[in-house]
Amino acid sequence: MPVYRNLDTIDAYGELAATAPFDVRKLSAERLARLSVPVAAGLEFCYGAAPVDAAHVAALQRLADQHELIAKYRELLRGAVVNTGESRPVLHHLLRGEPIGPVTYRDRDQGAFYRAQRTAFGQFAARVRSGDEVGATGKAFRTVVQIGIGGSDLGPRALYLALREWVATQPGAVTLEARFVSNVDPDDAAAVLSDLDFATTLFVVVSKSGTTQETLTNQQFVADLVRRGGHDFDPLHHTVAVTSQTSPMARNDGYRAVFSIDDSIGGRYSATSAVGGVILSLALGPEVFERLLAGATEADRAALEPRVSANAALLDALIGVYQRNVLGFATTAVLPYSQALSRFPAHLQQLDMESNGKSVNRAGTPVEYATGPIVFGEPGTNGQHSFYQLLHQGTTVVPLQFIGFRASQRGQDTEFDGSTSQTKLNANLAAQIVAFARGTSNANPNKTFTGGRPSTLIVGQSLTPEALGALLAHYENKIMFQGFAWNVNSFDQEGVQLGKVLTKAVLGGKPDAELAAAGALLGL
Amino acid sequence: MPVYRNLDTIDAYGELAATAPFDVRKLSAERLARLSVPVAAGLEFCYGAAPVDAAHVAALQRLADQHELIAKYRELLRGAVVNTGESRPVLHHLLRGEPIGPVTYRDRDQGAFYRAQRTAFGQFAARVRSGDEVGATGKAFRTVVQIGIGGSDLGPRALYLALREWVATQPGAVTLEARFVSNVDPDDAAAVLSDLDFATTLFVVVSKSGTTQETLTNQQFVADLVRRGGHDFDPLHHTVAVTSQTSPMARNDGYRAVFSIDDSIGGRYSATSAVGGVILSLALGPEVFERLLAGATEADRAALEPRVSANAALLDALIGVYQRNVLGFATTAVLPYSQALSRFPAHLQQLDMESNGKSVNRAGTPVEYATGPIVFGEPGTNGQHSFYQLLHQGTTVVPLQFIGFRASQRGQDTEFDGSTSQTKLNANLAAQIVAFARGTSNANPNKTFTGGRPSTLIVGQSLTPEALGALLAHYENKIMFQGFAWNVNSFDQEGVQLGKVLTKAVLGGKPDAELAAAGALLGL
Repeated sequence: MPVYRNLDTIDAYGELAATAPFDVRKLSAERLARLSVPVAAGLEFCYGAAPVDAAHVAALQRLADQHELIAKYRELLRGAVVNTGESRPVLHHLLRGEPIGPVTYRDRDQGAFYRAQRTAFGQFAARVRSGDEVGATGKAFRTVVQIGIGGSDLGPRALYLALREWVATQPGAVTLEARFVSNVDPDDAAAVLSDLDFATTLFVVVSKSGTTQETLTNQQFVADLVRRGGHDFDPLHHTVAVTSQTSPMARNDGYRAVFSIDDSIGGRYSATSAVGGVILSLALGPEVFERLLAGATEADRAALEPRVSANAALLDALIGVYQRNVLGFATTAVLPYSQALSRFPAHLQQLDMESNGKSVNRAGTPVEYATGPIVFGEPGTNGQHSFYQLLHQGTTVVPLQFIGFRASQRGQDTEFDGSTSQTKLNANLAAQIVAFARGTSNANPNKTFTGGRPSTLIVGQSLTPEALGALLAHYENKIMFQGFAWNVNSFDQEGVQLGKVLTKAVLGGKPDAELAAAGALLGL
Repeated sequence: MPVYRNLDTIDAYGELAATAPFDVRKLSAERLARLSVPVAAGLEFCYGAAPVDAAHVAALQRLADQHELIAKYRELLRGAVVNTGESRPVLHHLLRGEPIGPVTYRDRDQGAFYRAQRTAFGQFAARVRSGDEVGATGKAFRTVVQIGIGGSDLGPRALYLALREWVATQPGAVTLEARFVSNVDPDDAAAVLSDLDFATTLFVVVSKSGTTQETLTNQQFVADLVRRGGHDFDPLHHTVAVTSQTSPMARNDGYRAVFSIDDSIGGRYSATSAVGGVILSLALGPEVFERLLAGATEADRAALEPRVSANAALLDALIGVYQRNVLGFATTAVLPYSQALSRFPAHLQQLDMESNGKSVNRAGTPVEYATGPIVFGEPGTNGQHSFYQLLHQGTTVVPLQFIGFRASQRGQDTEFDGSTSQTKLNANLAAQIVAFARGTSNANPNKTFTGGRPSTLIVGQSLTPEALGALLAHYENKIMFQGFAWNVNSFDQEGVQLGKVLTKAVLGGKPDAELAAAGALLGL
């Protein structure tokens, strides 16, 4: 059994902290070519522009070994109660495979349970897509609308946007349009629903607990709209629920179908469960979702590798720890040079910041070191014309995580000024890696770039379902390893509770004086 | 003439640095009610939960006075060459009014020039919207597509999304759908254009220099698509250009119309110029754009107020400086509780990080203090289910900038569990302000919130065009004042140049060894 200890109690962490960073201004072609580790599904993690060299990798290996990081991952995979605060196992890896074998939880073969759900919603999706499953007025469904928030929104939305165009290029492709309603702001639902034809729309209401305020409110919003629209069918007949088997939603037999998740899947880790799977299978096809899962489980298996230098998720995680704790960089940017990944940074924001934005260790004792970083990002080249100014010349160093693909999804391109768009896109990415690392001097200090700004790159041939699944699982596993390193529980989110309690006090008409004063500013 | 000096040479900065922060855990109802300053157009800046009290405001006043911040703003408004690096004045305030009177630049009444452009594109937009101006096949235009990047994309897109639903609620509203192509990634253009009817689509190509690589490439992408689609009209006949009078685009007489901006308007400050005005006037109506400008100029005039306690932009700016330089907070989050403002944080990222992400002062000397912060944000309540965990319980404090409105735009709402969606939205916002400031103790340290996490709030009745204009100008002026405080040039962006140079080297077939190695990773 691995021993859970704070980062600053690990001898190798002391060694690491004493190791000066590799100066990325000394970037070389040889480093760029050599420092690369396979992720899965053809993706590579390239760290030639990261502030580490062989000495660091050796220290990171000792850190990983002394900290028993792989043993902790294996313990998680075996179904141990690693979500200590909530006394639950963490089983999202079983959603897509069994990296070290089956797991029994509450007397159930959990992998078999997830596979059965997948089969059920896959078959349902196939019937909807073929027109065998139709709306109340006999019309085929053409639009699917997911109602969910947080993990029931960000991950599924990011994955849908990431694959929509890829699917469009497949022979005989059928795509149902997917939309998403998340915010309790009534303008969100109103805007998304305003031009909908309810007769051809299927809703997917997603709440693990079945009690999420925003989601139930928006479900009601839809029901009101259907009623006001003069439709004479029960909105629930056009609604599928995704919820836990013990939730109030699961007991409502009005839904057209109910698919299950359970409490061993955290919201932000649920994209490969029914939470993401139902909408992705409906919109893009169950076979696309299966391919995504195949890529994810390949990455999960690759993350079992004990050698840091051959385990991309572990290495990425530990370079991040070095940058956060030794070099003191508090914020990191995720920069996909792929418009399809436009909302992937928003998903990673939740995945990372909600998992590791903690100040106490898994035993509940405050830690004396920095934990999870702040994460933000937008696609390149857009970001270049926006916030890159600060990244290049600001007073705060922000480590960068680039993502790129050699080929576009659509393959539709144009040549202008001697090169295609895809070539320009990647030329820009290559240029940024070198520019950030190396900088340049100039007689005019305003045109001087100090360089020394580190980055890593995840690169693949193109953004296929498998590559996307591998990318998603890579980050899930990276964040898990960082949580182990910091000795925090990456799987609870107590930090969201206080706001809920105070909101209830306002809505229940029992705010204290400060709450009432804050509410008064907002007209409450 | 005001004297430009570094922040750390100002006596009052020393005083400020010696003033301990107000402990926001002592938030009171009285503070929340009292500490509020009008912005413009009905918006208020509320700072009851900020870490400042009367002593700070007094020190900030002395700082503003000694640093001659209002005098510097007036100098900018008079047309002085405050963009020293590029030897240009900074005239975006004239786009919407003349806060202290007319300005002559290059022998031209610059305000009159902008008004004439506005009249011209307003009339053009009215003709398009009425169907007097039609496509090559005689059909009315129904969709407008902006092709631009950075300031030609983020601001216009954020403003369009912010007002689209508001317009839909107006009697007799006519809305043309607007879309945006920005990224050089060919998948961006392909996705946006895939289902377009070119016969009813008007393109707006925006590049101040007329040489922006991404934008010209995407213009070519459209031309190829029109040609491949078998249309027998010149794509330029369905294209309007927005560019400077000296650009190569301005010399092309194939465009259906050309509207002008000039080099005294920075890209990120161009949302209220033709860059934003053409697409907004086309999609939402010139009268909506005029109302937005009215709100902006009201905020510009309000920012002339010398008393810090009565000047929202100045106070917001200086609280930001206190948080950045004295308290050491490097990252700040913008959190609009308004789905309509979903892309407003992305615009602010450019506005702020590109303006003040600098390490040298306006004379070109490196500064010894922190400058512009990292900015990120997503709408509430979505963020609550995502990254708020770190904001509440992480090891790094992130000052928060909330934005809220008492009423929704659509006015379409639903009651569920005893309250409307809008009430729930604002109850959540009120709860967060108090939760972040006050925290709560608990026997379980994992459920303890240390509190002490500062925030401010900009609040209004509803998000009208005037309120949006005021909000936009508030941030432009806030960032300007912060640039004056840090003594940086907020109006150039030399930090984007190195990447361009290296990209050209790659595309021109002359990369050095490191560039070639980075390119090889990407298949170049």
